[in-house]
Amino acid sequence: MKMIKVTIWNEYKHELIDPKVSEMYPNGIHGQLAEFLQDEFEVTTATLAQAEHGLTESVLANTDVLLWWGHIAHDEVEDAIVSRVHERVLDGMGLIVLHSGHFSKIFKKLMGTSCDLKWREDEQPCRIWNVNPGHPITKGIGEYIDLEMEEMYGEHFDIPAPDELVLVSWYPGGEVFRSGCVYKRGNGKLFYFQPGHETYPSYYDKQVQKIIKNAVTFCAPTGNAYPSYGHFEKKEIKA
Amino acid sequence: MKMIKVTIWNEYKHELIDPKVSEMYPNGIHGQLAEFLQDEFEVTTATLAQAEHGLTESVLANTDVLLWWGHIAHDEVEDAIVSRVHERVLDGMGLIVLHSGHFSKIFKKLMGTSCDLKWREDEQPCRIWNVNPGHPITKGIGEYIDLEMEEMYGEHFDIPAPDELVLVSWYPGGEVFRSGCVYKRGNGKLFYFQPGHETYPSYYDKQVQKIIKNAVTFCAPTGNAYPSYGHFEKKEIKA
Amino acid sequence: MKMIKVTIWNEYKHELIDPKVSEMYPNGIHGQLAEFLQDEFEVTTATLAQAEHGLTESVLANTDVLLWWGHIAHDEVEDAIVSRVHERVLDGMGLIVLHSGHFSKIFKKLMGTSCDLKWREDEQPCRIWNVNPGHPITKGIGEYIDLEMEEMYGEHFDIPAPDELVLVSWYPGGEVFRSGCVYKRGNGKLFYFQPGHETYPSYYDKQVQKIIKNAVTFCAPTGNAYPSYGHFEKKEIKA
Amino acid sequence: MKMIKVTIWNEYKHELIDPKVSEMYPNGIHGQLAEFLQDEFEVTTATLAQAEHGLTESVLANTDVLLWWGHIAHDEVEDAIVSRVHERVLDGMGLIVLHSGHFSKIFKKLMGTSCDLKWREDEQPCRIWNVNPGHPITKGIGEYIDLEMEEMYGEHFDIPAPDELVLVSWYPGGEVFRSGCVYKRGNGKLFYFQPGHETYPSYYDKQVQKIIKNAVTFCAPTGNAYPSYGHFEKKEIKA
Repeated sequence: MKMIKVTIWNEYKHELIDPKVSEMYPNGIHGQLAEFLQDEFEVTTATLAQAEHGLTESVLANTDVLLWWGHIAHDEVEDAIVSRVHERVLDGMGLIVLHSGHFSKIFKKLMGTSCDLKWREDEQPCRIWNVNPGHPITKGIGEYIDLEMEEMYGEHFDIPAPDELVLVSWYPGGEVFRSGCVYKRGNGKLFYFQPGHETYPSYYDKQVQKIIKNAVTFCAPTGNAYPSYGHFEKKEIKA
Repeated sequence: MKMIKVTIWNEYKHELIDPKVSEMYPNGIHGQLAEFLQDEFEVTTATLAQAEHGLTESVLANTDVLLWWGHIAHDEVEDAIVSRVHERVLDGMGLIVLHSGHFSKIFKKLMGTSCDLKWREDEQPCRIWNVNPGHPITKGIGEYIDLEMEEMYGEHFDIPAPDELVLVSWYPGGEVFRSGCVYKRGNGKLFYFQPGHETYPSYYDKQVQKIIKNAVTFCAPTGNAYPSYGHFEKKEIKA
Repeated sequence: MKMIKVTIWNEYKHELIDPKVSEMYPNGIHGQLAEFLQDEFEVTTATLAQAEHGLTESVLANTDVLLWWGHIAHDEVEDAIVSRVHERVLDGMGLIVLHSGHFSKIFKKLMGTSCDLKWREDEQPCRIWNVNPGHPITKGIGEYIDLEMEEMYGEHFDIPAPDELVLVSWYPGGEVFRSGCVYKRGNGKLFYFQPGHETYPSYYDKQVQKIIKNAVTFCAPTGNAYPSYGHFEKKEIKA
Repeated sequence: MKMIKVTIWNEYKHELIDPKVSEMYPNGIHGQLAEFLQDEFEVTTATLAQAEHGLTESVLANTDVLLWWGHIAHDEVEDAIVSRVHERVLDGMGLIVLHSGHFSKIFKKLMGTSCDLKWREDEQPCRIWNVNPGHPITKGIGEYIDLEMEEMYGEHFDIPAPDELVLVSWYPGGEVFRSGCVYKRGNGKLFYFQPGHETYPSYYDKQVQKIIKNAVTFCAPTGNAYPSYGHFEKKEIKA
């Protein structure tokens, strides 16, 4: 029985206009993410062009963990949908923000910072170091993983200090990047993960897939109720 | 020479409509804050009713640390001004959010959470424990301070885990509260501090004043430039 | 199938000399801990008086999570055994330190601080607040739990800032305490949990039991190998 | 008036036996550290060969911030002196641990982990990134600094997650390292800083010097009393 319900959200624009991207990801980036997640999780997908971007109240109510990939159309995501996702995260839904999703409205809203960074597309490899070896997200990952090609994302990455720093990337041009970061916001757990440039094959990499699967399990809600807030009458303590 | 430039922002509504508040703070809450800060810092004040809420580009450019007190009119603060303050914080300006400012637009924007909490006005005392005794903000403060009367603010306080937890409050009704919290966002340092209900005399308390003065010094900018972001050419390393 | 192997270590001295303790815990504190853990986990116990304090190489090698209760005989624990436990924690074994175990050699060695605190035995109740509602350790726990009687432990608690602060306790005498604290050390996860005075019935409380069970699951090792250290030859990156 | 009293502790062994080191640091590593610190701080030095390693009760009582450089003789430092330094740190003295001091008894005692890491001496440069741009320790430092030559120290660095991560280093061989880490222990503040291989000129670098100076100011004690611990009578709250 697959216990965790995953919704994969993809902007799904590059794939429709850029042959290099549709060659790399013929079923869309969401399709490839679904491909390796569906063996272990109950997976659905949603895209920008759908009504309410595919993120209706009912879809979100049935989502344990939401994955988010966006890049060139962050501004087209309606604020009302962003607020809806935000409330679900505070309520306990997990959220995994991938690659260029660092600039999505939802990530910026949850971080409270610019989420800006340095970048360079130069078809170079990267090495991702595991700096938190006992963390559930790095289970089964060795000390580092190499990707044959990934976009350079470099510091300073304008995010709050992660609640747990899990991965740090090295790029041959001289840059480093906090590439795997855990946050808690309200009842919800978040994971930002750097790989996933639209013309590079990162989501076919077994180790990248393993990290994303681990992150889904880690970010799944505990089922705790969202705390009560507002006026609070004194509760007598038993003695 | 006073090196640090402080701007005190107050909503300044309670004082104009509620005699209990104007009796407690005849010069406004901002007036009383200014009263004890001006010996050590260069202090100006700003209020909601002023043009641009008194927070013009030039005022903010000349502010090292901004204090924020608001309560019943959070929604009247224009989003454009909130964004302006937000950018200045990321750029390095310090921000001290007081009491009911936990629900201000600027604090919620910087935190990314609901910032909600439990509360009760029952004219009871509170005890504020120093859980970070070597922190500059608690310099000269003993192990705890007692306030004869303060509004109860109780957990769960829906904030990100503080970068530094400094103070935890005890209330006689059975509640606890993370009442002194340090955050970094971009280049800026923030301090949230619980005391300051509008009808209680907390800002006349010497220990509360000491904590706020320490926080001003702590949150003052280092003068570092905001990092550069965006496309980044490889920089050769000297060898 | 019970997957997680738990070893419960108890000093087991109070129970043999103090009738009040043996009445409260007729099978020893370890016996009562085993009583509620054995339904879900594979449980063994070990005590100070056993050879190597019951913590032989082989016992530890077969332990996923170790619980530790000690009080009046911390100094009788041999340094060599403490070092052995320490190495297993760095290697990935989980460790749950209970109540007066705050002053155990192993906890002090892992924390690097004095681990001192304030205390008072006055047969008063306490309220333990959940300040991390989405955390796996508080799964199924509401917003707070009340214990009818628990020893007061008060701040300042001289520990490093927890990696995750989970619980904060309130005592009627005016004190607060960081009573549920998560740490990572090497590959291992640790949880310190305050309740458990030897003459009070805390380990019969269902909520306390739930928290300890959750903590066992949380602290269980991921199975990752301990990283390699020392001289490191350059590893070529595939490109 | 120089307000902060700095004691520089150096093992001082390499310089006496290795001509390459004595050429690089003719007055000892401590001599070169003193050279650039003495303009701003009141500086004294101490070495292993001195009585009580130069760290008598009176020297430590007169030290605000202690710097520590050691490498091949960690084991020759007496445990009693390590305990004395440890107590002073908990009491509020700042501690700056440099380079191979990661393996010193005092750092391991304060961290509670192995403090192990990967290393390689290959006369290659490194780039140190500022990942905490508003931090007082990086004041006046740009986005990164390049060192023409520094020993490679690589992850995993077996330390607790830093209270504040300030610097991350990049090495041309493919490694990254958390090279500037802030911790609080008791009342004391600590900074670990990676540069300083004994045959490389890092302590002549103006940016390295700037970081160490900033760290001295940052780690200086606040003057707060060490909290009281032990049995605690209920203190009535004023109301």
